[in-house]
Amino acid sequence: MNSLKELGEFGLIDRIRENFTAPKDILGIGDDCAVLPQKNGLQTLVSTDMLVEGTHFLLDDISPEDLGWKSAAVNFSDIAASGGKPVGTFLSLALPKGPGCVDSSWMEGFIRGYREMSDSAGAPLLGGDTTSSPDRLCINVTVLGQVRQGGAKLRSSACPGDLVCVTGTLGDSAAGLRQILQSLQRTPELVRSHYRPEPRLEWGIRLGGCDSVHAMMDISDGVGSDLRHILDASGTGARIDLSALPFSPELLQACMDNGWDPKELALCGGEDYELLFTLAPGGTVPDVPFTVIGTITEDRKLVWEGGDMDYMGFRHFFK
Amino acid sequence: MNSLKELGEFGLIDRIRENFTAPKDILGIGDDCAVLPQKNGLQTLVSTDMLVEGTHFLLDDISPEDLGWKSAAVNFSDIAASGGKPVGTFLSLALPKGPGCVDSSWMEGFIRGYREMSDSAGAPLLGGDTTSSPDRLCINVTVLGQVRQGGAKLRSSACPGDLVCVTGTLGDSAAGLRQILQSLQRTPELVRSHYRPEPRLEWGIRLGGCDSVHAMMDISDGVGSDLRHILDASGTGARIDLSALPFSPELLQACMDNGWDPKELALCGGEDYELLFTLAPGGTVPDVPFTVIGTITEDRKLVWEGGDMDYMGFRHFFK
Repeated sequence: MNSLKELGEFGLIDRIRENFTAPKDILGIGDDCAVLPQKNGLQTLVSTDMLVEGTHFLLDDISPEDLGWKSAAVNFSDIAASGGKPVGTFLSLALPKGPGCVDSSWMEGFIRGYREMSDSAGAPLLGGDTTSSPDRLCINVTVLGQVRQGGAKLRSSACPGDLVCVTGTLGDSAAGLRQILQSLQRTPELVRSHYRPEPRLEWGIRLGGCDSVHAMMDISDGVGSDLRHILDASGTGARIDLSALPFSPELLQACMDNGWDPKELALCGGEDYELLFTLAPGGTVPDVPFTVIGTITEDRKLVWEGGDMDYMGFRHFFK
Repeated sequence: MNSLKELGEFGLIDRIRENFTAPKDILGIGDDCAVLPQKNGLQTLVSTDMLVEGTHFLLDDISPEDLGWKSAAVNFSDIAASGGKPVGTFLSLALPKGPGCVDSSWMEGFIRGYREMSDSAGAPLLGGDTTSSPDRLCINVTVLGQVRQGGAKLRSSACPGDLVCVTGTLGDSAAGLRQILQSLQRTPELVRSHYRPEPRLEWGIRLGGCDSVHAMMDISDGVGSDLRHILDASGTGARIDLSALPFSPELLQACMDNGWDPKELALCGGEDYELLFTLAPGGTVPDVPFTVIGTITEDRKLVWEGGDMDYMGFRHFFK
């Protein structure tokens, strides 16, 4: 019998998936969202994410407003990754009993941040559950979205010859987190990327509307790890040019100041919430700022060019 | 500023609800399920529930199979309470790091129990999230269901003159829990009610199909507390005849053996997962075993007859 640590997060998901078969008109476990039919030209998208105090955040390090914002934002990012539009969310909260950070004024701040993000995404809170926890705060958000029939972008649709693309810049959130955890001078743009990620909803809808966009997902664990999901699901490989990774000037400055490698932050850092997608050669995407970082190949190998590191994605499971 | 303890669970839900307005075609926060339009003669139902180690269960006291079963069952019960049919579930798990009860064999058991309940409800697991927790296991399930357009039974539809009815028997789960916690001799039927509650899906669909069934909800916190939700939402009162509460022979025997009051277990015990509904006078419901326990009144008062206790519902929040 494997220990859970040996099994790891993705081994565990595989074991769960083996036990549950979705009906043939439903896309179940394994993509950013599940996709369910609606019979009216639309499909329902569903995704869920759990954030646990001590694993995903420390109450002393994040304001309630930012935690509220982020709890909603990371879920909207999954809807963006499928090319859909969010409809509403469901929030479960287990609140620590007894004296501590989580009091009524903390809750007001959390709700304010959650609502700010929800308003900006046009998707209200529609329900949830509140309960108590013996000690740690635990947050779960489920988001419902919709997309036109057949319009959901999946991880499994990459084709050999496709260009591998990312929106925005990479590594900012990871650099911001390092500044916070190591009590270094904070760069406002980097810290904001970490505390207040912007789900790429508009870009996701534009990318979702392009037939030349094939596979898509959001980057939550670092592009080094997340790209493997697209390759595994599509049965392809990729050649990635590390010198093409897009960095913000703020990230490059912080790396210079602290002796950090921006490529490591981009590949292993996590929590970018940018979109990673593959594009048919010659395809165009209007009004989305993106960078081509490589090419999908037939041979199922992932080759990093322009660097000799074997970057592993950020493993948040039993790390 | 109120402390969270003073605010309580329902005060907190009210504060959250004040901050989020659902679009006018969506029923949002406040019922067993949210109800969303589908435009094809059907409506989508959504509910979510969080279970935290140390608040809702102790790992030493419940087998992984039973915890898997129960995690799914309590969510299906919310779909039953709306008169709908479950479509699928989404499971988030935060698994404790380090050595402990939750290993690979524990996970196999949990998945087996979850699948057994899911299979019996005809609603597979469609997605989720797995992550780690510093110490305690936390489980969140979101369930999607469907119901015919306008067919969802709500808490707000009770009318003066309606009969107040419950399915099955009350208090069994609470008595089973007492036997477990106090290390008393266990009655298999009572302990099973606690560990393996049966969501009343078939009964919920039959009740949902009857126009004479007005308000409906499931009994998770004890009928003494849950009935108040129907009365508050409907703007009505009720007279309840405590001598009419339905008890199983096993519960009555356990109460005799241990000097317990069956009425207290029924009203305050919680986790019955039976259906509480109101029925127009003269209405009938084929093939559902139910008991009439009182009448809805106009005066907004809740009067308990046949007993002089002021039973409070089970308060799982900061109790």
